[in-house]
Amino acid sequence: MERNITVEKINQTKTSAREVEIVERKGIGHPDSVADGIAEAVSRALSKYYIEHYGRILHHNTDQVEVVGGQAAPKFGGGMVLEPTYILLSGRATTKVNEDRIPYKSIATKATKEYLRSNFKHLDMDADVMIDCRIGQGSVDLRAVYDTQRLKANDTSFGVGFAPFTDTENLVLATEKFINGPAVKSKLPAIGYDVKVMGFRQRDVINLTIAAAFVDKYVRDSSEYFSIKEELKTMVEDNASKITDKEVRVYINTADKDETGIVSHYLTVTGLSMENGDDGSVGRGNRVTGLITPYRPMSMEAAAGKNPVTHVGKLYNVLANLIAQDIIKEHGGDVEEVLVRIVSQIGRRVDDPHVANIQVIYDDNVDPSKHKNDIRNIADQRLERIGDLTQMFVEGKISVF
Amino acid sequence: MERNITVEKINQTKTSAREVEIVERKGIGHPDSVADGIAEAVSRALSKYYIEHYGRILHHNTDQVEVVGGQAAPKFGGGMVLEPTYILLSGRATTKVNEDRIPYKSIATKATKEYLRSNFKHLDMDADVMIDCRIGQGSVDLRAVYDTQRLKANDTSFGVGFAPFTDTENLVLATEKFINGPAVKSKLPAIGYDVKVMGFRQRDVINLTIAAAFVDKYVRDSSEYFSIKEELKTMVEDNASKITDKEVRVYINTADKDETGIVSHYLTVTGLSMENGDDGSVGRGNRVTGLITPYRPMSMEAAAGKNPVTHVGKLYNVLANLIAQDIIKEHGGDVEEVLVRIVSQIGRRVDDPHVANIQVIYDDNVDPSKHKNDIRNIADQRLERIGDLTQMFVEGKISVF
Amino acid sequence: MERNITVEKINQTKTSAREVEIVERKGIGHPDSVADGIAEAVSRALSKYYIEHYGRILHHNTDQVEVVGGQAAPKFGGGMVLEPTYILLSGRATTKVNEDRIPYKSIATKATKEYLRSNFKHLDMDADVMIDCRIGQGSVDLRAVYDTQRLKANDTSFGVGFAPFTDTENLVLATEKFINGPAVKSKLPAIGYDVKVMGFRQRDVINLTIAAAFVDKYVRDSSEYFSIKEELKTMVEDNASKITDKEVRVYINTADKDETGIVSHYLTVTGLSMENGDDGSVGRGNRVTGLITPYRPMSMEAAAGKNPVTHVGKLYNVLANLIAQDIIKEHGGDVEEVLVRIVSQIGRRVDDPHVANIQVIYDDNVDPSKHKNDIRNIADQRLERIGDLTQMFVEGKISVF
Amino acid sequence: MERNITVEKINQTKTSAREVEIVERKGIGHPDSVADGIAEAVSRALSKYYIEHYGRILHHNTDQVEVVGGQAAPKFGGGMVLEPTYILLSGRATTKVNEDRIPYKSIATKATKEYLRSNFKHLDMDADVMIDCRIGQGSVDLRAVYDTQRLKANDTSFGVGFAPFTDTENLVLATEKFINGPAVKSKLPAIGYDVKVMGFRQRDVINLTIAAAFVDKYVRDSSEYFSIKEELKTMVEDNASKITDKEVRVYINTADKDETGIVSHYLTVTGLSMENGDDGSVGRGNRVTGLITPYRPMSMEAAAGKNPVTHVGKLYNVLANLIAQDIIKEHGGDVEEVLVRIVSQIGRRVDDPHVANIQVIYDDNVDPSKHKNDIRNIADQRLERIGDLTQMFVEGKISVF
Repeated sequence: MERNITVEKINQTKTSAREVEIVERKGIGHPDSVADGIAEAVSRALSKYYIEHYGRILHHNTDQVEVVGGQAAPKFGGGMVLEPTYILLSGRATTKVNEDRIPYKSIATKATKEYLRSNFKHLDMDADVMIDCRIGQGSVDLRAVYDTQRLKANDTSFGVGFAPFTDTENLVLATEKFINGPAVKSKLPAIGYDVKVMGFRQRDVINLTIAAAFVDKYVRDSSEYFSIKEELKTMVEDNASKITDKEVRVYINTADKDETGIVSHYLTVTGLSMENGDDGSVGRGNRVTGLITPYRPMSMEAAAGKNPVTHVGKLYNVLANLIAQDIIKEHGGDVEEVLVRIVSQIGRRVDDPHVANIQVIYDDNVDPSKHKNDIRNIADQRLERIGDLTQMFVEGKISVF
Repeated sequence: MERNITVEKINQTKTSAREVEIVERKGIGHPDSVADGIAEAVSRALSKYYIEHYGRILHHNTDQVEVVGGQAAPKFGGGMVLEPTYILLSGRATTKVNEDRIPYKSIATKATKEYLRSNFKHLDMDADVMIDCRIGQGSVDLRAVYDTQRLKANDTSFGVGFAPFTDTENLVLATEKFINGPAVKSKLPAIGYDVKVMGFRQRDVINLTIAAAFVDKYVRDSSEYFSIKEELKTMVEDNASKITDKEVRVYINTADKDETGIVSHYLTVTGLSMENGDDGSVGRGNRVTGLITPYRPMSMEAAAGKNPVTHVGKLYNVLANLIAQDIIKEHGGDVEEVLVRIVSQIGRRVDDPHVANIQVIYDDNVDPSKHKNDIRNIADQRLERIGDLTQMFVEGKISVF
Repeated sequence: MERNITVEKINQTKTSAREVEIVERKGIGHPDSVADGIAEAVSRALSKYYIEHYGRILHHNTDQVEVVGGQAAPKFGGGMVLEPTYILLSGRATTKVNEDRIPYKSIATKATKEYLRSNFKHLDMDADVMIDCRIGQGSVDLRAVYDTQRLKANDTSFGVGFAPFTDTENLVLATEKFINGPAVKSKLPAIGYDVKVMGFRQRDVINLTIAAAFVDKYVRDSSEYFSIKEELKTMVEDNASKITDKEVRVYINTADKDETGIVSHYLTVTGLSMENGDDGSVGRGNRVTGLITPYRPMSMEAAAGKNPVTHVGKLYNVLANLIAQDIIKEHGGDVEEVLVRIVSQIGRRVDDPHVANIQVIYDDNVDPSKHKNDIRNIADQRLERIGDLTQMFVEGKISVF
Repeated sequence: MERNITVEKINQTKTSAREVEIVERKGIGHPDSVADGIAEAVSRALSKYYIEHYGRILHHNTDQVEVVGGQAAPKFGGGMVLEPTYILLSGRATTKVNEDRIPYKSIATKATKEYLRSNFKHLDMDADVMIDCRIGQGSVDLRAVYDTQRLKANDTSFGVGFAPFTDTENLVLATEKFINGPAVKSKLPAIGYDVKVMGFRQRDVINLTIAAAFVDKYVRDSSEYFSIKEELKTMVEDNASKITDKEVRVYINTADKDETGIVSHYLTVTGLSMENGDDGSVGRGNRVTGLITPYRPMSMEAAAGKNPVTHVGKLYNVLANLIAQDIIKEHGGDVEEVLVRIVSQIGRRVDDPHVANIQVIYDDNVDPSKHKNDIRNIADQRLERIGDLTQMFVEGKISVF
């Protein structure tokens, strides 16, 4: 098969060399990420059931989860949740195979609870969340496309990727993982899961603005709150210094004090802002890179919950990033930055996109013709083996948010 | 006030000169757009109520709408809806002012029904939709920030804009509006509201891949279906020729026939794919430009439903585009393309962003210093008058999707 | 067929001759009656669809409707509904016939709205109610029983009936119908639909305690409220004098004034107390007699919404009352009171109950043997023609609440 | 206080001497009883919270629970639940006290899960049930009546009671408790919780028709099913012989075989028919006696979930039965049967009903005047100490279904 792969040299200042850069990451406990995480957990659980019983993954897209924030009354020393967060699962699944009925709603509900329980330990699963499931049967026409053995794109869609990450991108990603990782959590149990990191680089200074929910039962009073915040700031700064040489300025919970001297605290009972009125939805948060990057090309596609077999919105976004990373791995130095877009057309095979467009920013003095074929081959190989991704999604080895 | 506005020359091939371009628009009847439209209609209705009773817009963000597709059995000559589409309204509103309770749920429910009724005439409002409202009270801390008279950013967020549109962008936008406009609807009543246009330019050829739901009662049989499709194709081609000189290839409902000769039809009862299993959600579709543009900088922000007073995710995205357009209007020619990002910080005044970063692609031989101050002033003026946007949102004069 | 019909003389003071009697009627606008009315409307609509398309009524029981009261702020001159009443439809229906899918949810939703719109004119259907439908497929085993042509009881259940009505019973029933009828509604438009009448007879005095919701927009102030109440009292007294010779004491909205002189008003926006927190549920209100009669035998069966073909809970309750009425019609005088119970057994034909037990209170000096056979025959004939009821239910000619 | 208590001799054949009697009990796992049990558990949990924090029980009525049956595919050896049962909690509670917000939704959700978990051990709480809570704030007017310290009736309502139980009544009640008790459950783990017992006495023969759900994982095949059923029949017969001297005929799951020889089995995964399409609702099952008794006076009142302080529908039904039992305890022999009705009027104190009417069937030759005063005193004393009931409800010492 001769794939339509275009490799294009572009003249462009590489991202790290520009004056300003903005990078955001919504941490695992942000309501949008909670929605993404549930959507993906449900897809994984359904996929496993389909494989176990029918030898292959059947059609589903559970990329619709709405998190409707509850109500809570946190207070120093420990408050309480007043109204549970309501979580609506929707999307589509294969609900019947021949004469077998699939327990798709039970699978989805159980996967949701297990995901929440294993990720957010301060949630009381009996009292703090209510789950409803309105997953239904897929549209018949799309299912016909799906059910053929030769896997065809379910939609006219596209994926977008880039490499390498800039310092700002690396820093934002690493900072959230650090705060939600064992080092911080064991030393500062008061730091909850809803952490949002906004990186804003202006020339050589990176401003990290962090919103981090505190868990009220681990904080005695306002003074302890501010002292924990100071500790967290120091830990984040130390960690940052291992990632970048640039100057990093860290701001945590900046709304805590306003100019008039009014003091507030970002307290929660569960470490999750969804407990008190913050809503979330699949696909509104991080891209498959784990980041939101307005200075980079992005797809609007909600990857979480999409079926990992034919949904190009999921496959192509991940693949585009993997291709970009491969290119940098093999041609970095000569290649300074690479941007990849892959476009499907409904009904075409998923390994044969409408176009794969690779834009390359070369170092000065590099002859593009030297790398063009190699780059093309990298993309060609990745497309050839696109089926490898499916199993990795099912096993949770590829993060999509 | 000295605003932090940076004007930066960048070296970059302008979008229209690149080899490949992808542009998408989800039409007004796409489930994601339906969700956006409802979210914005609810925000407008609440804003009007607040203004009428309290003289100003009170806090709300109704940017959470989940459209859970129904079930339908379309057929030539007219089929039927089997299960209503379920629409969940969530988000937050000011529910009490002093001792007055606000009829926010009744307002939201009514606004939703009026929006659907006035936009989608084939919907039977009694049988085809079910609406639930779980809008709640906002988080107390954010409300405190909001309720001060000096308007402060509700969040650390950013907006993104660019100008001018390329031919592909203009064409994609115009094509959807044409198909959903009076010319097509009066001549071809069979064409429904759920229209998705994907533009993919490769060098000088623009491929327009269009998915358009047909309304079954206006189509007798397969032969009439394909003949209407041909008519639509011709109309779209004619219209395209008024917009661009490039070669335009139009593909409509490409999944109708596959290589094995199996024929299907994209039929609906209501002209809306949500009737049969397609779900939608706020913020997953078009950006405030009306487009999804992976070759352009984008924000992930869901603008629809956000409050139009302090929500920077809404205000800055619209403002960034207006600034970009102003710059092209006044300096076009010398300025070939402009990219604008505006970053807020929670607690700062909305007219005083953390930074407004303007990247300019100049024509060769232009001296940047000639325009820099003017460009800065354009941005400064727009920020100074940011409050003007609010009323325009309330009156529905600014489209956000 | 030899039916198991027992006719038994009992020695018992007839109801009208006892010292005390309590009779209650929840008017058409009471939340429990609203639930009943919707359940029955949905059953009728489904039955009609089944008959039209398949020539017979297919299995369904839509006898589960939950009315969750909204929130309202009534006030003199006209207040507003703050939160819509939420109405959940559940129960079971035949959802698929051969390969046809039945639009059962759309039918149910539409029937609900039409019922509400045509009965309660002050309801704003766009803003004052939200409807959800979770009607599902019936249990397979029961459906097997149902789908045979020989109609068999779906359950082990029973029906209960009695005749004649006492003065108290006639009065309570007539009073509600009078208040919700054209005479009162045209003269006193302020009187709403949620009317509850409690009749309590002690010897020869009947106390009628009436709770009647007022429609706020038709009442200027407290003084007009009390004057309308006086008018209503007079009208009810006049009407009562046509029905009974007993002394009737009428009490309307007795909670309006308490002993400490605090005055309140039973005001509503829509004439329905469900607008402000009053919930309702099928089967908790009136029996098929239209009354709640703790001095009479009653069945707990919720008749409204049950399928009118095999559901003995519906059929036998109505039939038992018809048999009792027939007996009084033909043997009244000699027969002073008659109590009828009919017991089914799951799997038996509906026209062949486990037992029909008829208890008769004869006038003194009557020889029971004189009437026994005739009475037996009346019951036998009614059972023979039990199928006649089905069509009457479908046409709405038999009220079940 | 001089209470309006009337004691009336009535001439009436006592229930046990009549020809026919019907008595039904819906076991603890019947969907209507599940709804009752949850409603009462929620009321108890709220009451405890109110007492702990405010020293007294605040207004609430959580007597609205709708159980919407799921879908299941039971099979010998163990099947699976396909769709969770959906449980809607509604009703009203005091949601705010001064400035404290009450976590009423969290309390209600948690109480529901704990009730289900502790009563139905085969339920997988993660996968087999979904719970939604729409409990809202009570109507303001009723709350005003409630919140006074002198406890006043919340409604114009009544309670009904009788004594003594007949053999049929005792047998039906005892049989369900036996089947759901340790003796049967330890010997026959295959017998589930959804057990319905219908007793139908014709002269001296009591027919017990029992529907008992089997738990599929404890049954290998059809032959074992029928052998377990035989064992259960024998156990029930043995148990019955300890309760009554009458002939008892036991029929279990009579729909299992029809005349054409088709065999079915009443199998469930969880021992609960709600898993597969059976719905339930508060107040449609057993009366406070634990029975449904169409040959006895009954109230339609749903007692479960009602507040145990002022809700006469709850208090008076229980009290009427206690009074009847007291009378039989002290005057049995002379008094053969007693019927008690207590009527409230909204706004009157709960210990001062509109009337308490006591109907007495005396043994022949008894002079009523001999007992009248004593009987009156019994009722008067019980009314005087009506407040004692409240604490018993909170502690779960009084069963209401």
